[in-house]
Amino acid sequence: MTIDSLTAATRKQVDTFLQQKLEHLTLNKRLNQAMQHGVLLGGKRIRPYLVMTIADICAANETDAIRAAAAIELIHAYSLIHDDLPAMDDDDLRRGQPTCHIAYDEATAILAGDALQTLAFDILTEGSMQGLSAERQLQVVNVLAKASGAQGMCAGQAIDLQATAKTVTESALEQMHLSKTGALITAAASMGVLCGSNDAQQWLQKFEQFARYLGLAFQVQDDILDVTGNTEALGKPQGSDTASEKSTYVRLLGIEGAQQRLQNLHDKALQSLSDIPYNTDILKQFSDLLLKRDH
Amino acid sequence: MTIDSLTAATRKQVDTFLQQKLEHLTLNKRLNQAMQHGVLLGGKRIRPYLVMTIADICAANETDAIRAAAAIELIHAYSLIHDDLPAMDDDDLRRGQPTCHIAYDEATAILAGDALQTLAFDILTEGSMQGLSAERQLQVVNVLAKASGAQGMCAGQAIDLQATAKTVTESALEQMHLSKTGALITAAASMGVLCGSNDAQQWLQKFEQFARYLGLAFQVQDDILDVTGNTEALGKPQGSDTASEKSTYVRLLGIEGAQQRLQNLHDKALQSLSDIPYNTDILKQFSDLLLKRDH
Repeated sequence: MTIDSLTAATRKQVDTFLQQKLEHLTLNKRLNQAMQHGVLLGGKRIRPYLVMTIADICAANETDAIRAAAAIELIHAYSLIHDDLPAMDDDDLRRGQPTCHIAYDEATAILAGDALQTLAFDILTEGSMQGLSAERQLQVVNVLAKASGAQGMCAGQAIDLQATAKTVTESALEQMHLSKTGALITAAASMGVLCGSNDAQQWLQKFEQFARYLGLAFQVQDDILDVTGNTEALGKPQGSDTASEKSTYVRLLGIEGAQQRLQNLHDKALQSLSDIPYNTDILKQFSDLLLKRDH
Repeated sequence: MTIDSLTAATRKQVDTFLQQKLEHLTLNKRLNQAMQHGVLLGGKRIRPYLVMTIADICAANETDAIRAAAAIELIHAYSLIHDDLPAMDDDDLRRGQPTCHIAYDEATAILAGDALQTLAFDILTEGSMQGLSAERQLQVVNVLAKASGAQGMCAGQAIDLQATAKTVTESALEQMHLSKTGALITAAASMGVLCGSNDAQQWLQKFEQFARYLGLAFQVQDDILDVTGNTEALGKPQGSDTASEKSTYVRLLGIEGAQQRLQNLHDKALQSLSDIPYNTDILKQFSDLLLKRDH
């Protein structure tokens, strides 16, 4: 079993939903194509997988979970388009494909990112969800907004830009990742639980804790792969973080130190699951595969 | 009475609320300052004024209306930051101040715009509104999302970019403005009504029609001012649309033709109000002042 085969069914469900939503945006063809380029050309779909799997564990309605999963992937996709822009990380290649501003142009890439963010909130508020109250639905939206914005992902990206070519402490690096990628991965868990049963709500913090550790571990693994992986498997140039003088766990702790840190975070993630009285085996399997991936 | 004195009280209420919200975003100082720069340095606050005034006419709770007004202004502010970027309109000056990417840098400006969009949806979904059901609150959010995204404002901006230096028909120009600025101005009216009483909901379309005509008229006036106004009053270089080969009503219809079109749209806007059985005198006054402004 690989991470790709584990997540295949979920990816297909979410991608089908996203494709349908994107096809309805007909007002400007070029903008729409750039949006599709940013969303539909691959990706591990980690956040949607977490939403769908945790929602399933928490006995959520599947249609609600798909909406939540699609919305969080749209936020992730928009952030990648903007991160890749010349003024930000200036990347030409993503998932083995030209980045959005290379395939289209910079202005279209900015607008495509903007419109994908909007679409996330559109999808979550368009009519009521089937298995939860309107109050809970508002909570789902708010969790995503808080995780994406100036106290979450956007702040993390700003911190990252400002930290480039500087020596930072491990605590500062962790804080950066907790915002930049951790906030959204944690939100995936929160949204999954919020889509679930009333009973499941009491385990919200445990699921969030699991996701927070998983997100950090994922980031450490990402830093390790940037040094040890190969360009073809990664879909982006190996060593690109080093070249751009990014702060990374490997730079801070060395390869071995980073590998130890990865193991430690992995353990903590699994420990968070052990308190939850539902069957969470699939999340353990997902964590194992995710943190042993080669791309 | 000028437009600025008519809207002063509303502007103050909304600005105070926005300032409080922005001050709470402490995770990254530079990002937060760039966001404040984009939101708090002036602006006519046309959209918030429309939300608040229409909400008041429709007997809305004032706190709800302030949230809706602040959210729509955040969307407007984010769109201006991104529109001003070098890859888009490449403007250095806005409201007599350096634009966000000039005052900060391009990456920070992109992120500030992103985070302002997110904040709009955060504000609208953070806890329940006082005078309306959670279902109606979701509708308020969805109206804003639909108006801002790939079937609204973002599409309009994409169409605008693609139309630069091309000759377009009046109908194409109108379609562009209906998306680029009209969608959000119409959403201001919708949000105001949705915050209001149940009785007011039956007049939703009339208020929207009023806003649609007002938005188009505002755009025609904007095009006229670009030719006849002066740089100091406008807060941006006079003639900048001409210089950048933008499609404008003046380019298409001449000054006199544009002025006739403005009058015609103004009349239609007022006509839409005449069917509504509430006292809408203040909206008439607002329209008159807005469409006779010199900046």
